[in-house]
Amino acid sequence: MKRYVLIVAGGKGSRMGNDLPKQFIPIGGRPVLMHTLERFHQWDTSADIILILPEAHQSYWNMLCEELNCQVPHRIANGGETRFHSVRNGLSFVVEKGLVAVHDGVRPFVSGEVIGNCFAEAGESGAVIPVVSLSDSIREKGELGESHPADRSRFVAVQTPQIFRSDILLDAYQQPYSPAFTDDASVVEANGFPVTTISGNYENIKLTTPFDLLIAEAYVQKQKQCGL
Amino acid sequence: MKRYVLIVAGGKGSRMGNDLPKQFIPIGGRPVLMHTLERFHQWDTSADIILILPEAHQSYWNMLCEELNCQVPHRIANGGETRFHSVRNGLSFVVEKGLVAVHDGVRPFVSGEVIGNCFAEAGESGAVIPVVSLSDSIREKGELGESHPADRSRFVAVQTPQIFRSDILLDAYQQPYSPAFTDDASVVEANGFPVTTISGNYENIKLTTPFDLLIAEAYVQKQKQCGL
Repeated sequence: MKRYVLIVAGGKGSRMGNDLPKQFIPIGGRPVLMHTLERFHQWDTSADIILILPEAHQSYWNMLCEELNCQVPHRIANGGETRFHSVRNGLSFVVEKGLVAVHDGVRPFVSGEVIGNCFAEAGESGAVIPVVSLSDSIREKGELGESHPADRSRFVAVQTPQIFRSDILLDAYQQPYSPAFTDDASVVEANGFPVTTISGNYENIKLTTPFDLLIAEAYVQKQKQCGL
Repeated sequence: MKRYVLIVAGGKGSRMGNDLPKQFIPIGGRPVLMHTLERFHQWDTSADIILILPEAHQSYWNMLCEELNCQVPHRIANGGETRFHSVRNGLSFVVEKGLVAVHDGVRPFVSGEVIGNCFAEAGESGAVIPVVSLSDSIREKGELGESHPADRSRFVAVQTPQIFRSDILLDAYQQPYSPAFTDDASVVEANGFPVTTISGNYENIKLTTPFDLLIAEAYVQKQKQCGL
């Protein structure tokens, strides 16, 4: 079955404390985004990879690919105003029936096992997202600035890749935009299709802060040491 | 005002995939727990530090302290069956009026700023805990294996040190044990005293998995490079 991978890299990186958008920051000598693309390409060299980038970043990205000799074939779609609009732009490349993975460009550490499990499950159920348990206790905030304990075992943290049958995802993205669309699962669910959850890998963090970047660099170095 | 610091290190580390309990695993050449003690000692060299350790680990810890020339004065209390029982044991050392911080032994990266803010706020409100926002989207699990999106902005992740006026904490720990006591805030609240939240520092992670340990090692190395 045809496999599409949409890598969403629309972020401007304002939380990173760095002028360079976080998807371009080098870890282990190569930009975050290149690691992310390589993860999917290594798992399935025939996957059809679409990178969604703001137009303003595309020439810089092409230069990086040339300089660093990026070996991952991919096409580029224009980023939009929100994540929803970016993904919708990317979906214009989805012309064959198959499965479509949507993945955050700043999650370079998704495991091959999770990619494989998500594609397999999406083939069965039509819509799947990887989740992990919460590591800290949580509290719910009240309206008056107070807070009360919440049971963390009732919740899971959501990762990507979120993978869908192409007809389900394309149909869901016909809906008008809503600010309630925080990820692809929420778009698909709003269209009436239920989403299955499966176990993600804990290392698959979203690089958001300078601390995350330090983590990422350490993880890449460790993988190099271990010959991965 | 007298300041007590109770460091809780009762864990057996079963999630760590390592026979050595995680508080003893070396990062930057010294056990996690020693880093944690040093954080508080560096912030206030007059703080009265009580380390709560299972009896079975105490001779090993004393040996480590001697070998590594630990410079942090501290006394040792016996760990109990649960965190609640461990903290209650530690509270037997709290004999003067003052403020009592309770901190996870496996959170070596609390910042001096957060320690200071928590002590200051506890002096005002009587009970304070540091919290940070959630970095991932979350979903709430239903009873039938289904799940639905939850608004992560309604929740915060809870860290330590949790700091209290000694009379408030001692009184709360007179209550009989309940499995609902997941941290000290929940014990104090069950006793009818409200808890204030303030901003924690994002790096103050609880070292739980091998990936966390990798993060910790990287962070310690980085601090050494930067002369911290």
